[in-house]
Amino acid sequence: SKFEYVRKFETEEKLLPNCWIVVRIDGRAFHQFSTKHNFKKPNDESALALMNKAASVVMNEFKDIVLAYGQSDEYSFVLRKDTALYNRRGPKIMTYLSSLFTSSYVYHWNQFFKETKLKYPPAFDARVVLYPSDQNLRDYLSWRQADCHINNLYNTTFWALVLKGGLTNNEAEKRLCGTLSSDKNEILFSEFNTNYNNEPEMFKKGTILIRKRIKSPKHGKARLVILPLHEDLIQDKFWEKNSEILAIKTAQLYEWPEESPLPSLVLSQLHIGEFDRDKEIVIIEETD
Amino acid sequence: SKFEYVRKFETEEKLLPNCWIVVRIDGRAFHQFSTKHNFKKPNDESALALMNKAASVVMNEFKDIVLAYGQSDEYSFVLRKDTALYNRRGPKIMTYLSSLFTSSYVYHWNQFFKETKLKYPPAFDARVVLYPSDQNLRDYLSWRQADCHINNLYNTTFWALVLKGGLTNNEAEKRLCGTLSSDKNEILFSEFNTNYNNEPEMFKKGTILIRKRIKSPKHGKARLVILPLHEDLIQDKFWEKNSEILAIKTAQLYEWPEESPLPSLVLSQLHIGEFDRDKEIVIIEETD
Amino acid sequence: SKFEYVRKFETEEKLLPNCWIVVRIDGRAFHQFSTKHNFKKPNDESALALMNKAASVVMNEFKDIVLAYGQSDEYSFVLRKDTALYNRRGPKIMTYLSSLFTSSYVYHWNQFFKETKLKYPPAFDARVVLYPSDQNLRDYLSWRQADCHINNLYNTTFWALVLKGGLTNNEAEKRLCGTLSSDKNEILFSEFNTNYNNEPEMFKKGTILIRKRIKSPKHGKARLVILPLHEDLIQDKFWEKNSEILAIKTAQLYEWPEESPLPSLVLSQLHIGEFDRDKEIVIIEETD
Amino acid sequence: SKFEYVRKFETEEKLLPNCWIVVRIDGRAFHQFSTKHNFKKPNDESALALMNKAASVVMNEFKDIVLAYGQSDEYSFVLRKDTALYNRRGPKIMTYLSSLFTSSYVYHWNQFFKETKLKYPPAFDARVVLYPSDQNLRDYLSWRQADCHINNLYNTTFWALVLKGGLTNNEAEKRLCGTLSSDKNEILFSEFNTNYNNEPEMFKKGTILIRKRIKSPKHGKARLVILPLHEDLIQDKFWEKNSEILAIKTAQLYEWPEESPLPSLVLSQLHIGEFDRDKEIVIIEETD
Ligand SMILES: Nc1nc2c(ncn2[C@H]2C[C@H](O)[C@@H](COP(=O)(O)OP(=O)(O)OP(=O)(O)O)O2)c(=O)[nH]1
Ligand SMILES: Nc1nc2c(ncn2[C@H]2C[C@H](O)[C@@H](COP(=O)(O)OP(=O)(O)OP(=O)(O)O)O2)c(=O)[nH]1
Ligand SMILES: Nc1nc2c(ncn2[C@H]2C[C@H](O)[C@@H](COP(=O)(O)OP(=O)(O)OP(=O)(O)O)O2)c(=O)[nH]1
Ligand SMILES: Nc1nc2c(ncn2[C@H]2C[C@H](O)[C@@H](COP(=O)(O)OP(=O)(O)OP(=O)(O)O)O2)c(=O)[nH]1
Ligand SMILES: O=P(O)(O)OP(=O)(O)OP(=O)(O)O
Ligand SMILES: O=P(O)(O)OP(=O)(O)OP(=O)(O)O
Ligand SMILES: O=P(O)(O)OP(=O)(O)OP(=O)(O)O
Ligand SMILES: O=P(O)(O)OP(=O)(O)OP(=O)(O)O
Ligand SMILES: [Mg+2]
Ligand SMILES: [Mg+2]
Ligand SMILES: [Mg+2]
Ligand SMILES: [Mg+2]
Ligand SMILES: [Mg+2]
Ligand SMILES: [Mg+2]
Ligand SMILES: [Mg+2]
Ligand SMILES: [Mg+2]
Ligand SMILES: [Mg+2]
Ligand SMILES: [Mg+2]
Ligand SMILES: [Mg+2]
Ligand SMILES: [Mg+2]
Repeated sequence: SKFEYVRKFETEEKLLPNCWIVVRIDGRAFHQFSTKHNFKKPNDESALALMNKAASVVMNEFKDIVLAYGQSDEYSFVLRKDTALYNRRGPKIMTYLSSLFTSSYVYHWNQFFKETKLKYPPAFDARVVLYPSDQNLRDYLSWRQADCHINNLYNTTFWALVLKGGLTNNEAEKRLCGTLSSDKNEILFSEFNTNYNNEPEMFKKGTILIRKRIKSPKHGKARLVILPLHEDLIQDKFWEKNSEILAIKTAQLYEWPEESPLPSLVLSQLHIGEFDRDKEIVIIEETD
Repeated sequence: SKFEYVRKFETEEKLLPNCWIVVRIDGRAFHQFSTKHNFKKPNDESALALMNKAASVVMNEFKDIVLAYGQSDEYSFVLRKDTALYNRRGPKIMTYLSSLFTSSYVYHWNQFFKETKLKYPPAFDARVVLYPSDQNLRDYLSWRQADCHINNLYNTTFWALVLKGGLTNNEAEKRLCGTLSSDKNEILFSEFNTNYNNEPEMFKKGTILIRKRIKSPKHGKARLVILPLHEDLIQDKFWEKNSEILAIKTAQLYEWPEESPLPSLVLSQLHIGEFDRDKEIVIIEETD
Repeated sequence: SKFEYVRKFETEEKLLPNCWIVVRIDGRAFHQFSTKHNFKKPNDESALALMNKAASVVMNEFKDIVLAYGQSDEYSFVLRKDTALYNRRGPKIMTYLSSLFTSSYVYHWNQFFKETKLKYPPAFDARVVLYPSDQNLRDYLSWRQADCHINNLYNTTFWALVLKGGLTNNEAEKRLCGTLSSDKNEILFSEFNTNYNNEPEMFKKGTILIRKRIKSPKHGKARLVILPLHEDLIQDKFWEKNSEILAIKTAQLYEWPEESPLPSLVLSQLHIGEFDRDKEIVIIEETD
Repeated sequence: SKFEYVRKFETEEKLLPNCWIVVRIDGRAFHQFSTKHNFKKPNDESALALMNKAASVVMNEFKDIVLAYGQSDEYSFVLRKDTALYNRRGPKIMTYLSSLFTSSYVYHWNQFFKETKLKYPPAFDARVVLYPSDQNLRDYLSWRQADCHINNLYNTTFWALVLKGGLTNNEAEKRLCGTLSSDKNEILFSEFNTNYNNEPEMFKKGTILIRKRIKSPKHGKARLVILPLHEDLIQDKFWEKNSEILAIKTAQLYEWPEESPLPSLVLSQLHIGEFDRDKEIVIIEETD
């Protein structure tokens, strides 16, 4: 048709080959969203579990995602260096991932917030960043985990001062201004009898999602699942234990300690217990 | 921190100033999504109403959107040439609009699909395209409306052949292969006693969302609403009647014909009738 | 071959259609280059003539250039909005124009600097900028001409203070610091008996190159030439007189005043006088 | 000034950090340029020496270039992964390198073509390509050297058939159509008593420019020079011998075999012999 020429105004940016592709999404005005929905401070278990759930839907749908890392209102998805997903068209990858994350966040809200109705539709931004080397990628993830730790230590101390210490927000802020990590630990320990190290790992470390095969308690056979871990990824240990990630090899068997219960995120993937009916309908992966 | 350097890998693309910014979103694998959720064929009133609802939430939240046009599983948002929204950062604009659209689509699903449960979280892609001149912008919108007409005429005839004529999908496809618009009209008229012109305007023309002030039936005062119109925008008439759009002037008063009921999309914005409780909580527009 | 994959790492940026394309080149470290080659201060007629010559070679070679504007060590080339030169590939256009400019600058050096040998090979940077509207383009050219005027008024006064007034560079700089245009005019007039308005038009206005047909003194027939003009292009007058530029119409006849001699740049294009032997061998325009 | 806003239309693309930056320039319409200037076929020693000279001026001026590779009418410059030259602004790097190459090509023409006057100013295009890994970079250079070999074998056989065998261009082309490398070697050997392996190394391998310290025959002290080599860089041997390149370490001492004369390109850098007066005036490197 005579209007078809307008298609030529579209740009066609392909992401540089042989680079790790990172898509980071971040909640829009979640300071306000968390307040409006009475998120527990500083960390709301349900909110973080919902973020992990939404991220696992995305990771399950797009097999080229080798790892995801989330904290607070953000999630980072790492696509394998050699992915050909949508011909490496940046906008296409970025918008499908952020749209599916948003959609899953709203879709699964009721399952995680049984008493709080979702008051209005939230939104998440997204951006694509390329990291040419394994070291750059590790430094990116370390940057996010360090950010998680610093924010969580600050927020944990801040809300202790406010909720337990009775200070106003401004007083707490002034009190913490210029303090070192050690000072914050000291405040928590001496004034609130709280040992920061005993805080839940997820709050301190954020959540790493990786693909692993684990023995299903239902039938003992190994099943491929998206496994949430809350551990350090700044030191080498994590990368040595899970060398298949940077090496882009197939998922390895993960020996989940017998005695500790499987995370609900895994149970729902194995259709066990209360999540049984939550059969994950795999959205047929539509390749370009 | 020593990891902060990774931030320098982010690109900072600013969209060229003084161009119309168009963000088009399009449902991912909606051929499958529509089938899985038993959308009426070829057009499902509830599905199209939900698309319009999601688009109106986006248009209500981002005031620099001067017009939106939707058909099938796609919506186009036009931002004013001189917008400074998020410093004209393409990815930021594109992802917030597509994420809020997706979120609203899932959030308002039950209100439009009372009997069909949403089976899995849908996703929408998004892209940004710049149009330097008013003529380019009009040609873009004409391209989409022409596409709507051609697809709708084909689909209306196709499903008439299948649902009423008893043909299989392949037979219907072969029958329509190579036919002109006139042939399709002829089939509808002679074999199915259907005059294509009498099809609902929304199916033939798609939906235009523009900002207008209309007299609220509740109290007669003029209220700024997002008004859905189903009319031609390829000829000059629409642009002459609504000259404030390309001129980027304030919304004009729209004389809604007394006798015809206001669209539910408008009633919900005026908090009237069954949509009363559907108070639109304005998400505080967060400017960068 | 097994190495061919490396080609896929090349980006293919096409410049947005329907925008004026401006390529501006600027001499690298010309402060040093002009000193090393004893350019007259503040303006060296030969240097400016050579810049105009190099620009005219570029404009002659690439017919889609509708106008060029030069001052000091920079030149701007304006390509027609609808050019398809090299499929509007930005780097291709930018590098061919800047390379041919550089090559012509060195090639024609001896013809303009008869006594000063070119001491080392100069270099010019280049950049591409898109201007969506005629007004943006006019404002761009006005920006460059205003810059030319401000710099020239400053430099003319500065070098008068130094070369005629005997001040050191620093003294002259301090003297001019914070002065208005009127103050500078006053210094020139009262201390150096110089009326700025009588300075050569090329120094004050820079050089505009446009395509015109003029009657050749050799045989009276109209010949298409690249004509250098030194006049204001900030007011409307220039654009009204030369409306074919923005309207992208064919070159008009230009009535060169009988009594004043044709610029040497034109004579060389008409192969007249000392420039006769300087037959311009048209480099076959290679379209992509 | 009120026109300053036009500056905001400039894009600011920074090249992705931690990637090898390759700038390849290529002569514009050199098929025609080489014919017009009677270049010896298939390889013209002077033309190739001039290309190497121009490239060495560029490499001498921009210290972040770690290696250059040239063949036919093209040259590739490799900048170190961590260069901060002009804040890694792509257009700035690309245009300064291609402009200085062009300028040096014209500037030094007479020194290499004593009898042939430069008939018109040549031009070179340029492009920037990023290579994230050392392997990608090696494959890029291998791609260019393999291209050099294939073209040279074809051209050597083609021109033997035409200049010695008396065939027309078309006959030679038809004769070579579909032949393998071995067939071409066979034609050269059996019909023209030419052993392709004995062809000059520069014609077969192209020219590698790297920074080395060599003992100056003038005073025996080690001088940093840009050394032209004509050897294979597809196998590992070259990269093992010159490991400082990929490791971005300082230039190593190169034992130039006593008996063979130093290349003129090196002599001119050491100001020895006829090139003594060709004192290279270092253009002060202007950092952004
Ligand atoms: N109470 C509570 N707040 C949370 C939780 N997770 C995230 N938030 C809030 C705390 C922060 O104010 C906000 C995340 O920081 P951001 O820098 O992303 O701020 P925000 O989203 O408001 O701004 P943005 O639109 O992203 O620029 O979300 C949670 O688990 N509990
Ligand atoms: N039955 C029915 N189908 C609809 C309706 N609206 C959209 N669809 C379906 C028809 C088309 O197959 C599809 C829209 O065409 P697309 O080219 O976007 O196809 P699809 O989304 O499957 O592919 P994509 O992922 O966008 O490349 O959605 C509706 O109201 N009723
Ligand atoms: N004496 C004299 N100097 C001139 C003439 N034309 C240009 N120049 C010098 C004056 C300025 O210092 C310089 C042009 O200003 P720029 O901002 O381009 O400075 P420059 O080229 O040194 O820096 P750049 O490498 O472009 O960032 O060239 C002339 O006709 N006569
Ligand atoms: N006789 C001769 N010709 C050469 C020599 N070096 C390069 N050439 C010619 C042969 C080729 O026709 C041409 C280089 O191939 P290109 O693909 O770059 O062709 P050309 O520059 O004509 O097209 P382009 O403007 O780059 O697209 O230059 C030489 O040493 N001797
Ligand atoms: O969506 P369109 O109209 O650009 O066309 P497509 O075939 O869906 O292609 P893509 O969505 O991948 O750009
Ligand atoms: O989100 P970040 O960390 O890049 O930092 P910001 O201040 O939120 O900036 P923006 O989201 O607008 O890039
Ligand atoms: O120069 P190349 O090798 O990329 O190939 P080409 O055919 O000359 O194409 P262009 O120079 O226009 O990219
Ligand atoms: O050349 P300009 O006018 O953009 O300004 P500058 O200070 O020379 O900056 P650069 O040439 O590096 O863009
Ligand atoms: Mg942010
Ligand atoms: Mg946020
Ligand atoms: Mg955040
Ligand atoms: Mg599509
Ligand atoms: Mg679709
Ligand atoms: Mg569609
Ligand atoms: Mg500059
Ligand atoms: Mg300069
Ligand atoms: Mg300048
Ligand atoms: Mg080429
Ligand atoms: Mg070439
Ligand atoms: Mg070539």
